[in-house]
Amino acid sequence: MTREIAIFDSTLRDGAQGEGISFSVADKLKIVETLDGLGVAYIEAGNPGSNPKDLEFFERVKKIKLANAKLAAFGSTRRRDISVEEDANIQSLLKADTPVVVIFGKSWDFHVTDIIKTTLEENLAMIKDTLKFFKEKGKEVIFDAEHFFDGYKSNPQYAMEALSAAVEGGADCLVLCETNGGAFPDEVYEITKKVAERFDVPIGIHPHNDGGMAVANAIMAVEAGASQVQGTFIGIGERCGNVNLSTVIANLQLKKSYQCIPEDKMVSLTKTARRIAEIANVSLTDGMPYVGKSAFAHKGGMHIDGVSKASHSFEHINPELVGNERRFLMSEVAGRSTILSKIQKFNESIDKDSPETKNIIDKLKRLEHLGYQFEGAESTFELIIRKELGKYKPFFELEHFKIIGEHPAGDESFSSSAMIKVKVDGQTEITAAEGDGPVNALDKALRKALEIFYPELRDVHLTDYKVRVLDTKQATAAKVRVLIESTDGEDIWTTVGVSSDIIEASWIALVDSIEYKLIKDIEKKFKAYL
Amino acid sequence: MTREIAIFDSTLRDGAQGEGISFSVADKLKIVETLDGLGVAYIEAGNPGSNPKDLEFFERVKKIKLANAKLAAFGSTRRRDISVEEDANIQSLLKADTPVVVIFGKSWDFHVTDIIKTTLEENLAMIKDTLKFFKEKGKEVIFDAEHFFDGYKSNPQYAMEALSAAVEGGADCLVLCETNGGAFPDEVYEITKKVAERFDVPIGIHPHNDGGMAVANAIMAVEAGASQVQGTFIGIGERCGNVNLSTVIANLQLKKSYQCIPEDKMVSLTKTARRIAEIANVSLTDGMPYVGKSAFAHKGGMHIDGVSKASHSFEHINPELVGNERRFLMSEVAGRSTILSKIQKFNESIDKDSPETKNIIDKLKRLEHLGYQFEGAESTFELIIRKELGKYKPFFELEHFKIIGEHPAGDESFSSSAMIKVKVDGQTEITAAEGDGPVNALDKALRKALEIFYPELRDVHLTDYKVRVLDTKQATAAKVRVLIESTDGEDIWTTVGVSSDIIEASWIALVDSIEYKLIKDIEKKFKAYL
Repeated sequence: MTREIAIFDSTLRDGAQGEGISFSVADKLKIVETLDGLGVAYIEAGNPGSNPKDLEFFERVKKIKLANAKLAAFGSTRRRDISVEEDANIQSLLKADTPVVVIFGKSWDFHVTDIIKTTLEENLAMIKDTLKFFKEKGKEVIFDAEHFFDGYKSNPQYAMEALSAAVEGGADCLVLCETNGGAFPDEVYEITKKVAERFDVPIGIHPHNDGGMAVANAIMAVEAGASQVQGTFIGIGERCGNVNLSTVIANLQLKKSYQCIPEDKMVSLTKTARRIAEIANVSLTDGMPYVGKSAFAHKGGMHIDGVSKASHSFEHINPELVGNERRFLMSEVAGRSTILSKIQKFNESIDKDSPETKNIIDKLKRLEHLGYQFEGAESTFELIIRKELGKYKPFFELEHFKIIGEHPAGDESFSSSAMIKVKVDGQTEITAAEGDGPVNALDKALRKALEIFYPELRDVHLTDYKVRVLDTKQATAAKVRVLIESTDGEDIWTTVGVSSDIIEASWIALVDSIEYKLIKDIEKKFKAYL
Repeated sequence: MTREIAIFDSTLRDGAQGEGISFSVADKLKIVETLDGLGVAYIEAGNPGSNPKDLEFFERVKKIKLANAKLAAFGSTRRRDISVEEDANIQSLLKADTPVVVIFGKSWDFHVTDIIKTTLEENLAMIKDTLKFFKEKGKEVIFDAEHFFDGYKSNPQYAMEALSAAVEGGADCLVLCETNGGAFPDEVYEITKKVAERFDVPIGIHPHNDGGMAVANAIMAVEAGASQVQGTFIGIGERCGNVNLSTVIANLQLKKSYQCIPEDKMVSLTKTARRIAEIANVSLTDGMPYVGKSAFAHKGGMHIDGVSKASHSFEHINPELVGNERRFLMSEVAGRSTILSKIQKFNESIDKDSPETKNIIDKLKRLEHLGYQFEGAESTFELIIRKELGKYKPFFELEHFKIIGEHPAGDESFSSSAMIKVKVDGQTEITAAEGDGPVNALDKALRKALEIFYPELRDVHLTDYKVRVLDTKQATAAKVRVLIESTDGEDIWTTVGVSSDIIEASWIALVDSIEYKLIKDIEKKFKAYL
């Protein structure tokens, strides 16, 4: 029988504690809409007591109509020795006006006596009073028992009393927080089981990843009876992060009999993870389970062979189930067969022993040695094959370009401009453009010059520009690899350039991008003749 | 009682299957020395059958005297229907001339019949024959049972027969591979336990991370009786990677009664992980357990307060145990106390309600909004405080600079040069320099001009230069953040600049770097007067 698991996302609260993470109000609103669209049960969106900026957010978020998720605000139990009414943080939390309130309180005796410095009895009263206050205001109240597992190991009786105080206060859910992130799956299972046996209230789990076992800890807690998992969608959070919910959802729903999100939303898992990473301005780890770029990327020759015969031979699930895709990587380890399949697209009569194959592999190796990488830059790779097979003619000749950066420059504090002269079919064109930085100026000038000859270039614009410093120890003289992603509204393609000069590396990738587009159009237009 | 666990590192073999990973022979030799220095038991360094380049490596590695580790080469069982002597891969493996040989073979019936397409009997013979061959050559032979867990779930009897064939062939260790990476810790525990009960031979575990549970799976297998863990030191590997050994070692040795590496080497764990990442040219995930930059970074105000009172209040271990360090991050979430402690270094009489504190926090917020980040750029942050407190006077005025990039340029295909005019105490200096790229040229020209006035700048050089594109959707017009790390041989400091122009962002960070150095020297030299 399928058991429902409530997914509780704290990207906007606990996730914001991650190093380098900072959300604007607009970012937060976008993430709320994204998570609601996927169908998570709860979105914890801020701590109005500790961060006044969050109140503005809670005001604005009311205008969004949520289809699936309930919004939660997070705050502490009342401070010691004052009433709930006197506590300014509690009042801010109430002002956030969310249907769900999450109250965290201490369940580890050491934290009560040594960190917040009060008596064990007062801490229990703080928990009970605070929950009671919010229940009387009509809220759904979730109790986060901070450091529950460390607390239980230190003083099991007191940890349980903290939960009892929450139940007396009216808690709708008791969440066991593995705050320091160092617990093992077997102990999480045992302790969660004991709690689930003792209380009738639903149990939740909130694991951190300091021991690299947050996902396993979440799963084991669910197997022991927990019905809510608190984490962050792509695992961001303080120190080593919170549990990665995208992994937990896929593990529970695709491989065990639990339902976390609506069945038809599972294919949006990858898209959701990438969108949240984009809004949070972090790069999703390539190897992130299920949703990472490399999660279904095969490089070893035998693996590629196996997957081609039967996908489950080297894949734990079909990538389509989570909206991700299978990729065969090109490299010396991949062996000739992958490269050969790309070559044969141009000329079917070429086989693995043909001299063309050897030439292309040699060229590939030389470029890899220089710092090129064709994984993720298939368009440049295709142009290399074309050039080696003679299926290529340059679309223009560069006569000269010159880039000037000046500071100060006229009224502006800084200006970048580029002058370029190109020749197409014997006709030269010279032009110039200004831009935000030298590469942008060069990109604009080049396209301005070429659009006269190739008007279809007007549809092209760059959608991504990535710089990777290959040898940071050389500092500003280091080699850089530039990846450019372009689109004409119909297709997306990626090209690469490497040089110790960022301008030259960008130039190489820009030229490939433009040539790839022009070839693509010729192929489409004149397919019948080719 | 302490039980010894053999750590088997496959960074150079299975790790090399990771996307974007490519090792030169020199890289491989460096990694062997690094891992041996830490005290791992086995280093699997290549697959001489599938990669001829590996043979060169095995020739050269013989010159390295290893203190702790045994070197292993990896290869398949003999191919079907031929003898071991006829199999070229087996002969290459023998030629690698390593004391340890790892043979992988099929233990999942489906893979035997549908992927390598032979009979179940022939596969057992392939395993036994191959192991026997290498045992007769005097090798220590480890058997990697590929897909063991999927195999066991599909046909437990046949999976066990594959192991029996390996034992008959003389296997010194039976390694259960969780090849597709999708298993759960409880099933890994159960199945490993059954194997350990059945065979007298030592058992190993080889987990992959496709379900995000590789670390937990390794730990549970050890708890069930496995005494060898195969993985890669920082978790690189095909798809989602192999199990991260740095996490496994710390979990087992610091928290359970297992010995993985010599006790006194544990403090080198972080250093080793960072060195391997550097050689592999990948960036270590900030949140990597134990060894990541953020693994002990605290941002929430209450966490910083707690850790200041007692480190174990929000840390699962003391970071010094693994050679990592605790960091308190600066940000709006951190609250005023962290920022205040930095301000008070300059003026002890300033408190949290002083107008200076408010001004600095406002300035900080404005800059963060522009894309600045001071986590990891403490020197720029210090200069901001100085400027706000009036403890700062510029060391030079920039009159003008101009950068020129040309292609083609004289004999060179590309040239970058910078001209700069600065003024110090009313005296102007104009000079120029060429460089690898515009930023390098500007850096050289600026220091050339200033060295006349400040000869101590001769000792400074940049050790790291990082570019982060902040808003990739703007492509080449996107905002970039440049981080510069500088050293004068004595100290290391980091500065930051943000602009939509990479030259301007670099300029801002360069100026901060130089000013920080000059102030630092004044402080040292004139301490007595200040």
